[in-house]
Amino acid sequence: MDRRKFLGAAALATAAVGASACAVTPEDLTAATAADPSLPEVSWQMATSWPPLLDTIFGGATTFAETVSALTGGKFTIDVRAAGELAPGLEVLNVVEQGAVQCGHTASYYYVGKSPVTAFGTALPFGLTNRQNNAWFHQGGGLEMMQAFYGERFGVIQFPAGNTGAQMGGWFNKEIQSIADMEGLKMRIPGLGGQVMDRLGVTVQVLPGGEIFQALQTGAIDAAEWVGPYDDLRLNFQQAAKFYYYPGWWEPGPTLEVQVNLDEWNGLPEEYQAAIATAANVANTNMMATYDAKNIPALAELMSSDVVLSPFPDDVMQAAEGESFAMYDEIAASDPDFSSILSAWSEFRSGIQGWHGLAEAAMTSYQSIL
Amino acid sequence: MDRRKFLGAAALATAAVGASACAVTPEDLTAATAADPSLPEVSWQMATSWPPLLDTIFGGATTFAETVSALTGGKFTIDVRAAGELAPGLEVLNVVEQGAVQCGHTASYYYVGKSPVTAFGTALPFGLTNRQNNAWFHQGGGLEMMQAFYGERFGVIQFPAGNTGAQMGGWFNKEIQSIADMEGLKMRIPGLGGQVMDRLGVTVQVLPGGEIFQALQTGAIDAAEWVGPYDDLRLNFQQAAKFYYYPGWWEPGPTLEVQVNLDEWNGLPEEYQAAIATAANVANTNMMATYDAKNIPALAELMSSDVVLSPFPDDVMQAAEGESFAMYDEIAASDPDFSSILSAWSEFRSGIQGWHGLAEAAMTSYQSIL
Repeated sequence: MDRRKFLGAAALATAAVGASACAVTPEDLTAATAADPSLPEVSWQMATSWPPLLDTIFGGATTFAETVSALTGGKFTIDVRAAGELAPGLEVLNVVEQGAVQCGHTASYYYVGKSPVTAFGTALPFGLTNRQNNAWFHQGGGLEMMQAFYGERFGVIQFPAGNTGAQMGGWFNKEIQSIADMEGLKMRIPGLGGQVMDRLGVTVQVLPGGEIFQALQTGAIDAAEWVGPYDDLRLNFQQAAKFYYYPGWWEPGPTLEVQVNLDEWNGLPEEYQAAIATAANVANTNMMATYDAKNIPALAELMSSDVVLSPFPDDVMQAAEGESFAMYDEIAASDPDFSSILSAWSEFRSGIQGWHGLAEAAMTSYQSIL
Repeated sequence: MDRRKFLGAAALATAAVGASACAVTPEDLTAATAADPSLPEVSWQMATSWPPLLDTIFGGATTFAETVSALTGGKFTIDVRAAGELAPGLEVLNVVEQGAVQCGHTASYYYVGKSPVTAFGTALPFGLTNRQNNAWFHQGGGLEMMQAFYGERFGVIQFPAGNTGAQMGGWFNKEIQSIADMEGLKMRIPGLGGQVMDRLGVTVQVLPGGEIFQALQTGAIDAAEWVGPYDDLRLNFQQAAKFYYYPGWWEPGPTLEVQVNLDEWNGLPEEYQAAIATAANVANTNMMATYDAKNIPALAELMSSDVVLSPFPDDVMQAAEGESFAMYDEIAASDPDFSSILSAWSEFRSGIQGWHGLAEAAMTSYQSIL
């Protein structure tokens, strides 16, 4: 990447919003923008991590592209491609970093192998909800820190562009009455959640979506997590396991993101940069709204079968939270970037959990009618 | 208003997104948009309901205007004016309806005197949270219904553009141990929440923000609600009353909105219409994030005084919910528009409360550490 150009982008954002914040958000771009009657035609491709079958999460990418086009009178078009077309689903960041593709729509935490810092871009076990992530990214310094890290490390700039909400805890072929029942269970669960499960004595397996149903039905695994009612129903898990647990404490509000190669970003007119940032925000709201709306009938359909819906026992929640933060401390001990962001994130997390523990929690818990 | 132009706008939206939905959202506008190298300079004024002192809610209007400017290379500028400058704070819709001002930023429910339907645009007691409102507006048919009503009735089109989150229940000069303690209480609380309080035996008073502190301190009133920690702290309520209750069940996630005169809207290039719709979405996210971030230190400051923080007793919540829905049925009996939207809204509310009662409620309640 061209380091000078990255610093230029950061300086632009800082100049526009003052010293107190420098994440690039739409309103930051006003000051430096001048009317330009001859905006260029720009055609990009977008690599995504999603098969079109996962229409809600894939829809985040298409909502983004359609909004960019609408904002620019069709001059800036982005061709959204399914996982595997431009890059394998878990290698979107790689091709955007290399500049082989201009932009992508993916989950930051797919790239924890490159750096554990990427987890903060999506979800950490016992981390932030959808709304808490929005607050941390946009008004808690989170996006500023994550953009600085992505710029330095990958030559990429990213924008939150989707959320699933708190996920379900998955499908189990037996009842979980206490933490002892987790011991020795064979469960499909990837990522940091899987690492915490491993610390709880679970035998962790990682399988792609298309292989989970058969593994669960044949008893090759005892449990599997995926997303929530709408997506889970499509994979028919209710026909392979009876006990459906919540919450998916490893993903309390995972954020998806648009990633843009910084050299490509720096070559855009400022109106188009603003279009990317605002279109990502529209995708962020719209994917969450779509999951919420689609999960309502999906949940009703699941409940009409003989599914047993239960919260995880308290001792599972407590043991898992303890192991999660022990793991974060271990990662932080050998990774200064992770350590620095963990510290800021943990302070914000405590504060907003305290605040949301009052009116929000009381309202939500009063509404819990199931 | 020009009815043909409004129908034109609705037809445009319908054509762009298909038959299943016709709320005007950013992604809807793609199909009909053509590249135009000569976009016009447009300068609008915006009337708001807010004094700049309420910087977070006023900030929703300025974020909106700055984002529109950034998206259009500074060609489309909106001059945001404080309450009282272009119109009294509670008459924004009136001046936008008349076309005296092109657009406004206000709360729909300030205009329940014009029609009780306007309450659905902001908040009803025991209604939707921030995220539930987003889902209902954008993917539950809510914005479509509300835009159709506003178009027909006022010649105005509106877009959600801010939220405070669940508000606090206010400041009381005595402990509320049960519903019996509400009887005869003199409380400052406006709107539908005030009407429900009246049904609970509370003597309801409506006072502007600047007069509440003195009334509470002198004992002219026994209780008052405002917004939440950040805004409440600015008015120093903690020095006038000791008992701080939650949640503000009358405002579980009130939405603020941008209102645009339909004749002005129809005169805009489609890129500028898309800029308005997407900029409103940015303001919606950003105001919520700003309230969340600012409430954290404000709550800590309040807790360092001798404030007693408590949830409303269960019997207060239950009695208030019962009276709320009895009141909605009474309004519906004499207002077919209200009746029709109430029916759709109630069905969506039940569904999403069931869904949010699982993973979201479990995660939020586990996080409730105060």
